[in-house]
Amino acid sequence: MRIGFIGLGQMGRGMAGRLLDAGHMLSVWNRSPGPAAGLLARGARWSERPEQTLDNEVVISMLADDAAVQAVWIDSGLVQKSAAALTHLNMASVSLSMGRQLAQMHRAAGSAYVAAPVFGRPESATQGQLDIVAAGPADALERCGPLFETLGRRWFNVGHEAHQANIVKIARNFVLATIIESLGEAFALVGKSSVPPEQFLDIITSTSMNAPAYKDYGRRIIAPPTNPTFPLRLGLKDVELALAAAAECAVPLPSAALIREQHLAAIAHGYGDKDWAQLGNWIIERA
Amino acid sequence: MRIGFIGLGQMGRGMAGRLLDAGHMLSVWNRSPGPAAGLLARGARWSERPEQTLDNEVVISMLADDAAVQAVWIDSGLVQKSAAALTHLNMASVSLSMGRQLAQMHRAAGSAYVAAPVFGRPESATQGQLDIVAAGPADALERCGPLFETLGRRWFNVGHEAHQANIVKIARNFVLATIIESLGEAFALVGKSSVPPEQFLDIITSTSMNAPAYKDYGRRIIAPPTNPTFPLRLGLKDVELALAAAAECAVPLPSAALIREQHLAAIAHGYGDKDWAQLGNWIIERA
Amino acid sequence: MRIGFIGLGQMGRGMAGRLLDAGHMLSVWNRSPGPAAGLLARGARWSERPEQTLDNEVVISMLADDAAVQAVWIDSGLVQKSAAALTHLNMASVSLSMGRQLAQMHRAAGSAYVAAPVFGRPESATQGQLDIVAAGPADALERCGPLFETLGRRWFNVGHEAHQANIVKIARNFVLATIIESLGEAFALVGKSSVPPEQFLDIITSTSMNAPAYKDYGRRIIAPPTNPTFPLRLGLKDVELALAAAAECAVPLPSAALIREQHLAAIAHGYGDKDWAQLGNWIIERA
Amino acid sequence: MRIGFIGLGQMGRGMAGRLLDAGHMLSVWNRSPGPAAGLLARGARWSERPEQTLDNEVVISMLADDAAVQAVWIDSGLVQKSAAALTHLNMASVSLSMGRQLAQMHRAAGSAYVAAPVFGRPESATQGQLDIVAAGPADALERCGPLFETLGRRWFNVGHEAHQANIVKIARNFVLATIIESLGEAFALVGKSSVPPEQFLDIITSTSMNAPAYKDYGRRIIAPPTNPTFPLRLGLKDVELALAAAAECAVPLPSAALIREQHLAAIAHGYGDKDWAQLGNWIIERA
Repeated sequence: MRIGFIGLGQMGRGMAGRLLDAGHMLSVWNRSPGPAAGLLARGARWSERPEQTLDNEVVISMLADDAAVQAVWIDSGLVQKSAAALTHLNMASVSLSMGRQLAQMHRAAGSAYVAAPVFGRPESATQGQLDIVAAGPADALERCGPLFETLGRRWFNVGHEAHQANIVKIARNFVLATIIESLGEAFALVGKSSVPPEQFLDIITSTSMNAPAYKDYGRRIIAPPTNPTFPLRLGLKDVELALAAAAECAVPLPSAALIREQHLAAIAHGYGDKDWAQLGNWIIERA
Repeated sequence: MRIGFIGLGQMGRGMAGRLLDAGHMLSVWNRSPGPAAGLLARGARWSERPEQTLDNEVVISMLADDAAVQAVWIDSGLVQKSAAALTHLNMASVSLSMGRQLAQMHRAAGSAYVAAPVFGRPESATQGQLDIVAAGPADALERCGPLFETLGRRWFNVGHEAHQANIVKIARNFVLATIIESLGEAFALVGKSSVPPEQFLDIITSTSMNAPAYKDYGRRIIAPPTNPTFPLRLGLKDVELALAAAAECAVPLPSAALIREQHLAAIAHGYGDKDWAQLGNWIIERA
Repeated sequence: MRIGFIGLGQMGRGMAGRLLDAGHMLSVWNRSPGPAAGLLARGARWSERPEQTLDNEVVISMLADDAAVQAVWIDSGLVQKSAAALTHLNMASVSLSMGRQLAQMHRAAGSAYVAAPVFGRPESATQGQLDIVAAGPADALERCGPLFETLGRRWFNVGHEAHQANIVKIARNFVLATIIESLGEAFALVGKSSVPPEQFLDIITSTSMNAPAYKDYGRRIIAPPTNPTFPLRLGLKDVELALAAAAECAVPLPSAALIREQHLAAIAHGYGDKDWAQLGNWIIERA
Repeated sequence: MRIGFIGLGQMGRGMAGRLLDAGHMLSVWNRSPGPAAGLLARGARWSERPEQTLDNEVVISMLADDAAVQAVWIDSGLVQKSAAALTHLNMASVSLSMGRQLAQMHRAAGSAYVAAPVFGRPESATQGQLDIVAAGPADALERCGPLFETLGRRWFNVGHEAHQANIVKIARNFVLATIIESLGEAFALVGKSSVPPEQFLDIITSTSMNAPAYKDYGRRIIAPPTNPTFPLRLGLKDVELALAAAAECAVPLPSAALIREQHLAAIAHGYGDKDWAQLGNWIIERA
């Protein structure tokens, strides 16, 4: 398939490389050309401007946040320039309101819009092992299906409205935040009775909380990674996406509100650039 | 082994039956004799008074709460009557302070005290499929080992101080409460974008939150059981055990504090006797 | 003095009228001309466009919110058109970041900027009985002094940086929100022991909580006004201004976070357009 | 009047002295005799045992907490020994459940019981300037009226059920706690914009938050007293009385829950014996 690809951060590069390996033809754009080098060497074509990626069946975008999407797709008029044949496949995480707005603008422009945010780290992207949550018009989803097969180990179709995929990603990351918070609190509590956190973690993850998220984030609290791939500051952004989405539809999210304040306190104490899981360490230290 | 057994609620009956099946000799006591009938028919001996269970190597107690322990073991002087050869194996969940107090009283009386609270429902008790968290003096734990093998599918030795087992159980149940709360909030949030809770649950439990606790409590929110085995009111008690333990050692547990208030609000709206997971339904209804 | 006046809502009209009465010459602008009628009849001059108000010593603006300020002053280029001799006196409540941005833009344009948000209802505006919190360059504040005397019963100089006045207003309104929340909780609590809220209010406001805010908001909970002058929805906006300001400087505001969720829950139950104090009624009803 | 007086802490001594000055005859008891010395020198009679205070029209008790009341009045059988003519006037702060229990026990014993907790510091006790909240049977309240006139500058009759006075005291102290918490948060917020807390305090207490509680606790945050008369640890106890009362009647008190956790965190950082208001300092320090 002929694919445009916008946004070559760590995740984007891994995904684009995977698509090249699967035989797709890519024209790529990134704000700065540096990160494209490896992909160009493997056969991707460089686009001088985002518009040049539009001449494809699908344009995947994997931009950092709402502000980047606003700049590249909206303020520049890129959406309006999208042809009717084009499907904009947004695999980045954006806010609920941005998700709604993009869908509406594409509808007005006559082009198709699919939201398909992913779960997974850069290495999963490279290996095609992402979990993908997709939503959008049925025919557009169908067109994207083969790409999902290449990029992910699993994909979920959560509805015809693109923003439904965004809310699933947002709600799931909120649940992740509650896991970090609750592990921090529980570790602090058992620690005061001289039960080491690793033993507590071992017990709960070999019984009813036997899930990758508990194992992974629990371990990261116990042995903080020296090279955080996802800093606490970005964790806060995820919690704020949940709060913003909830405010839009008047849903109280008291846990998210509490956890947001915990992030702020941790950031005020210098944890902003540490690994997200170290929110747990801050909670323990504070106790 | 010759075993005394005090407290024949649903859990206690299942466990006592399992021990009988394994060939142990039981003398049982319960506040009201009714629940003992089945066990007596299977060979257990009835004790008219708790003291009569003391003439054994081990006395297992499985009483409902701190108040019952206080009445049966402390106010009655039962601890002091325990012989040096006796091991009091308390498999019920008690507060951290009660755990500490019993250990100290047994130490003073010269008898051994082991705390070994369990995870699992009555059917797991009947089938010897409990998860057991044990703590106490090494030799006493060793004596209890064979019983743990009979009663559980797994057991964990968390230390020489009995209360260490209590705090692990308390902290784990607190984490369970955060799971219910966070599922309720997340379901409320995705529901406003017409994503059904079962689909959200399916997605998170087939990816990084693939744990029995999420599956089980998630399902119970989606399809509330008609015969709750563990009512919300008891869930509140667990959260309060966590808060009380945390207060003893000056550990802030902000999530537990928030969740306690949610329980109170749910109880004020008539959810006290519903299944614990319906805290989630109350959260959804409120949104 | 020759004064421009932008923004003729209830507060703005009252303030502008008071200035006319004091003998000042006003050129007024409002998005829709209707609200200006009364002022024009009393001698004010109508400006067809905001720019026409710039030809004065001082332009007071009293716009509804950040979005209105963004549209009228920033997107339109009004700030850049301000002459060096002009003082923009912003008496409306804006966010901390908007406060900082306006100050910086005026500095770049060479014009003066003073922030002077007010406490008080429309009738206080009409009667010159506002409380005014002002900040900005010393000479600009001095120029505005006589206007503060006319408009307020008191004014406070809180510093040379305009945003200092904004943060004081924001923090004070946050404290107001905690008063409503705490009264709601306290009324709910005493009510369960058949102590009527009016009696509790009478006791605390005749002893150590003898403050207008407790009396006023307490009474509004007990006897909700039929014509709310300040709806709950706007109260939420104030709490969000506090949370946004706090996030900018990494200050945890756990009470504000909790109260925000309470507002959302109340709004979800149809309280959005009721008087702000009815947050208290919602809390009582929920208990 | 002939009065028994039990409990000679700082508050009790001040009150007893005031009663002596007003010409009443006092027989006093305290766990340790030391604090009674000054009163004996002024004419009070020493009671070797609490029972000896019962031979009076009224016995005022001013014991430290529920545990002391339990020991002196309940476990000792003092309530049952009370004659029908006796009025037990409990001016200390006890929990809602203790308040209910004492009323019921006195009713069973045929004696009268009045709860009349007070607001004020030791110096107010000495000067008869307390604020008194009283509840109990009408005739018993009438008998106590003259004592209230001597001890207080004001007294409030809040109902015929003694525990109604307890809940008013508890709810009022909870509101006090929210004042300290909100001042701490607000000071932290304005401080980040270089607005000194004393200026913020001056502004809010000269406008709508013009109440002794804001002035007093605000000042204590700004200039912590070297000799705390009411340590943070006791503040926590007050918040816990509110939470316990609320749990009894299924009232959610989310602010109290949050503030309890803040106290625990502050205590974990060594603030337990500092002045209650320093909860605010801890919040500022943490930001």
